[in-house]
Amino acid sequence: MSTRALTLGFDADDTLWHNEVIFEKVHERYRELLARYHDAATVDRTLFATEMRNLELYGYGVKGFTLSAIETAIQLTAGKISADEIQQLISLGRDMLEHPVDVLDGVVETLTALSGQHRLLVITKGDLRDQERKLARSGLAAHFQHVEILSEKDEGSYAALFRRHAIDPARFLMVGNSLKSDILPVLALGGAGVHVPYHITWAAERVETATQASSRFFQLKSVRELPEILSTWSASL
Amino acid sequence: MSTRALTLGFDADDTLWHNEVIFEKVHERYRELLARYHDAATVDRTLFATEMRNLELYGYGVKGFTLSAIETAIQLTAGKISADEIQQLISLGRDMLEHPVDVLDGVVETLTALSGQHRLLVITKGDLRDQERKLARSGLAAHFQHVEILSEKDEGSYAALFRRHAIDPARFLMVGNSLKSDILPVLALGGAGVHVPYHITWAAERVETATQASSRFFQLKSVRELPEILSTWSASL
Repeated sequence: MSTRALTLGFDADDTLWHNEVIFEKVHERYRELLARYHDAATVDRTLFATEMRNLELYGYGVKGFTLSAIETAIQLTAGKISADEIQQLISLGRDMLEHPVDVLDGVVETLTALSGQHRLLVITKGDLRDQERKLARSGLAAHFQHVEILSEKDEGSYAALFRRHAIDPARFLMVGNSLKSDILPVLALGGAGVHVPYHITWAAERVETATQASSRFFQLKSVRELPEILSTWSASL
Repeated sequence: MSTRALTLGFDADDTLWHNEVIFEKVHERYRELLARYHDAATVDRTLFATEMRNLELYGYGVKGFTLSAIETAIQLTAGKISADEIQQLISLGRDMLEHPVDVLDGVVETLTALSGQHRLLVITKGDLRDQERKLARSGLAAHFQHVEILSEKDEGSYAALFRRHAIDPARFLMVGNSLKSDILPVLALGGAGVHVPYHITWAAERVETATQASSRFFQLKSVRELPEILSTWSASL
């Protein structure tokens, strides 16, 4: 790896592989299960409120989601939900954990092109074992020098990660689908951010902030455009 | 830190702070909740079987335990458990996550004595956010250079950790209450192990293996004896 090598961080869910589409399917089955009691909008709104209330305690990931889904179902049915239906919710959670990993289009080619030249990291949040399992199943693990599964992706946790790996933020670029978790904190610390939107964004990751014009911010339609952007950006360093 | 500095790994639950006593109290309440249906031994045995069956999928920690407890309760009551009782199980899980952190006797003094001379790491497993929260609440975080929350503590994960931190196993000593997770894999890799038993051991951490006589294995009654053992061991290096 040359002295010109950069450190590239990659978010995992909805950046390397599909994730939100799996949650979306689960939400549909959840609405059906509760359709006798409430309309879909009420179900969605109440579940989201429970998730946000529990986020500090549970953190991100499927297990916390499943517990929040059970709690919400008990609340929305005023305790009339049956044990059998709660077992269905546990099974929905299990299905999510066992779901095959579907790597996004262009990811394999892009990682293959970049991993010889630069230091690549996975930087994600969620349940520890679930994220490790998905990375193993994705077949992408060999491209990455380190995998960082964080309990939160904010300025503090990126700063700690930079110290841990002796990363110069000026030579760090983060690729991800979430402006809130992948781009804004990295830009604030002096790094570069490449936003590759996924077609669905979880409500908790949506931000109102208009991203400032910055020579360190890029928005791509596909991760396939990453090598070209890298050339542009690294020439400016 | 001198060139004679060693790397000392500390397990967290039941090594730095009390944990199994909290699970024990929860088990008591769980048995009471199901006492109308089954005797305590059946409840314990069935819950443990569910936990072991789900371990690969859920990993360690309170959230997975709570999901297994709900699943077991539905099974043991043939679906007759009420939504209100399931909500009580969710609350039990929440109580565990919110439980105050009770640092074990002698830990503060021992870490204070050692952290100036050696490199100290926390090496634990469990839910990411839960373990981070407990470390923050314990007031012990400043003693440690790194915190490693692993999805499993076996030879493979210790070997990866040694590579990640450039640790020479011959100069690494692990302190913990579990022979299975803290001692045997480290001895196998050429490190030293200090076993400080806790008065309760979770069934999944029990091992039949008689620990081989080894000049790298020590068993202490209290972590207070650690500095003395360290002198003995490091003199042999």
